[in-house]
Amino acid sequence: MKLALLGCGLLGGSAAAAWRRAGTATTVIGFDRDADAVRRGIALGMIDVAAGGVAEAVAGADCVLLATPVGAMPALLGALASHVRDDAVVTDVGSTKEGIVEAARAALGRKFARFVPAHPIAGAESHGIENASSELFDGRWVIVTPTTETAVDALRRIESAWTGCGAIVEPMDAREHDRIFAAVSHLPHLAAFALMRAVAAGADGSRCLQFAGAGFRDFTRIAASDATMWRDVALANRKALVRELTMYRAELDALQAALDRGDGTALLRMFEDASQVRRGMRFGAFGRREGEDGHDA
Amino acid sequence: MKLALLGCGLLGGSAAAAWRRAGTATTVIGFDRDADAVRRGIALGMIDVAAGGVAEAVAGADCVLLATPVGAMPALLGALASHVRDDAVVTDVGSTKEGIVEAARAALGRKFARFVPAHPIAGAESHGIENASSELFDGRWVIVTPTTETAVDALRRIESAWTGCGAIVEPMDAREHDRIFAAVSHLPHLAAFALMRAVAAGADGSRCLQFAGAGFRDFTRIAASDATMWRDVALANRKALVRELTMYRAELDALQAALDRGDGTALLRMFEDASQVRRGMRFGAFGRREGEDGHDA
Repeated sequence: MKLALLGCGLLGGSAAAAWRRAGTATTVIGFDRDADAVRRGIALGMIDVAAGGVAEAVAGADCVLLATPVGAMPALLGALASHVRDDAVVTDVGSTKEGIVEAARAALGRKFARFVPAHPIAGAESHGIENASSELFDGRWVIVTPTTETAVDALRRIESAWTGCGAIVEPMDAREHDRIFAAVSHLPHLAAFALMRAVAAGADGSRCLQFAGAGFRDFTRIAASDATMWRDVALANRKALVRELTMYRAELDALQAALDRGDGTALLRMFEDASQVRRGMRFGAFGRREGEDGHDA
Repeated sequence: MKLALLGCGLLGGSAAAAWRRAGTATTVIGFDRDADAVRRGIALGMIDVAAGGVAEAVAGADCVLLATPVGAMPALLGALASHVRDDAVVTDVGSTKEGIVEAARAALGRKFARFVPAHPIAGAESHGIENASSELFDGRWVIVTPTTETAVDALRRIESAWTGCGAIVEPMDAREHDRIFAAVSHLPHLAAFALMRAVAAGADGSRCLQFAGAGFRDFTRIAASDATMWRDVALANRKALVRELTMYRAELDALQAALDRGDGTALLRMFEDASQVRRGMRFGAFGRREGEDGHDA
């Protein structure tokens, strides 16, 4: 299978490498507006051929994988629509789904039936194709959000491509996807960015940061994530994210009110609730408790 | 040196084990209101003798180490004051310092000169003496907050006890300590507790949590921390914590405002600020970048 990879960063490179390792992709044609990223991907053996543009990249491809920040995807879909083969499958790895489905519907016309929206729950704060790994998806969820118009054979091909990388595929409604990931991914990223800024901006910010321990390190790890990617995610999932942010701020308000009135009983109850839920959590598609590798996005 | 350990949990057990390994403590007398914790500590070889009460524990001790949640420390200081030897050193491992210094001054009278307030920046979400480790303090900061009344020989003994465990001792004013740790430790814990509650309390909370990835896992790890310990910390450092919480909420307000008006430029700038600071951070007393073990408290 000839794969056109549009966007040659950590996630795209990892997908190309994982699909190749599984025997799903035999040739990978790479395009990125940063031509050097494609060259590095070729040097790493993750990409076979550099394309000079979107049209050239997708022309002969059996499958087109969009792996840019989600904000760049609508324009890419518009650019590829008339060049992609009728029987090719187009898919993506975007962290938001509703907006991309609508953009694909608008851009692809009758080829929209061959668009399979997907979101692998894997990633890293590190970025660039030099940090890509063919094992990134092992034991991870890949959410697919097909519509009633999605062709079954196209969906099956993408599902088996991801299953071949050790991932577990979970179908979901695009709107439900966006609500769930607003809560468990987009909100934590915003909360970590905000906390990092609040601490750093204080009068003695750098002295404070010098004494930060492992709790701070883990809590803020996602604050090192790629700013462009997260700006796009935040804008694309704005409505659901504002809803989650509002709920989070209400919890912080309740906490601050309990602090203000010195209400140890209320604080203890809130902390116990949170601690109990967190201790019971399992992670990844195989329900591991702690200590798995990798990062979500 | 005969050490009286008051509070036999993860931190107390680790301190006793580390001080013993370094040759600082030769005999450890343990007391905890949970007698079973003392028995487990004896079985683990971390405690030598169980004391029936505070008076019995401290009577012959060269050093008394308070390792309970900070809320229990004022009463303990009151209980030990008339039984501790005049030349003994009393110290603690509490995460807040100003309140404890005041409680010690009130409880210990002329013996206050022999009280050395200390805070090792080490800990874990796991708790109980069975999770204690003699290596917990290796490469970690231990903050000491002596007053002008503190006896130099007492301070030196505690400093060298911690240095002997591989820790780096940093002296600091108690108020500055509380301000710094409100920012880099107490606020992140509150933020993680609040986010955990906000997500879990949603209509489909448990379905959301099923798909949480490694970012959520790391961000919320500290939300599994001991609720009683953190209630005490929050109450003891209420003023500084409310100030930090107010700054954090202002950052979240700014973020939500940028989202509401769809201002990608502002979002990008905020995320870039945070990401840049986070990427430049070093952790622990030796300035390791990432991947060190253990957790702060």
